[in-house]
Amino acid sequence: MNKIEHIGIAVSNLEAAINNYEKLLNTPVYKTEEIVSESVKTAFLQCGPNKVELLEATAADSAIAKFIDKKGDGIHHIAFEVVDIIAEMQRLKNEGFVLLNDAPKLGADNKLVCFVHPKTANGVLIELCQSIGTNPSE
Amino acid sequence: MNKIEHIGIAVSNLEAAINNYEKLLNTPVYKTEEIVSESVKTAFLQCGPNKVELLEATAADSAIAKFIDKKGDGIHHIAFEVVDIIAEMQRLKNEGFVLLNDAPKLGADNKLVCFVHPKTANGVLIELCQSIGTNPSE
Repeated sequence: MNKIEHIGIAVSNLEAAINNYEKLLNTPVYKTEEIVSESVKTAFLQCGPNKVELLEATAADSAIAKFIDKKGDGIHHIAFEVVDIIAEMQRLKNEGFVLLNDAPKLGADNKLVCFVHPKTANGVLIELCQSIGTNPSE
Repeated sequence: MNKIEHIGIAVSNLEAAINNYEKLLNTPVYKTEEIVSESVKTAFLQCGPNKVELLEATAADSAIAKFIDKKGDGIHHIAFEVVDIIAEMQRLKNEGFVLLNDAPKLGADNKLVCFVHPKTANGVLIELCQSIGTNPSE
């Protein structure tokens, strides 16, 4: 894994969270994006080589809505950048980690993503993400 | 803020968590350190420009022990690297953020650190950290 690509923070009000994190990180949001398949609106802030992703649910039965209902605003996941997501998924499966999807799926920010179950990662929801087109085997 | 310096993960069993995260991140722990003043044992793994810090409590009344009692293993804080922690603390205070310490204190990994209250950061415990000796005004 190359680096922490981003931290995902679940928020109940995206507009207010954007205002808050722009002040906290002293940098403007550079992109907002709605991921209809995940029922989520996102906003990204850059911090050197890393990003902070703010996520607000757009449907009451979405993963982010359920997280907010249970825990309130807070850290939802950590995403690590990988070069070859298929190879990394296989390596983690071989090591006994439980993956939440069998094949990579399209996530925000033009990435292929896969999640690792928190129960196999000390309570942390881990995302693997690969920028589309960066797999050297393609 | 320059980058995400590290993610702090609270764990109930440091030895087991080290074994797990060495497999997850595919890299060995490069340093362990006990911070007596914080009643915590820590282990660090490098991931490109970022680190993952695993934290186990050494006293039942410590912040990490209380976190584990309430929530179980999971993400405890996000640390951002800053160049001048005093200036950054003042900037955040001026923006209305609540700081958990009035002056920087000595943290793990030879850093000066200060925490921002989660209630002012959408439920996220934020750490500012400055490597000792990197303040250009020194």
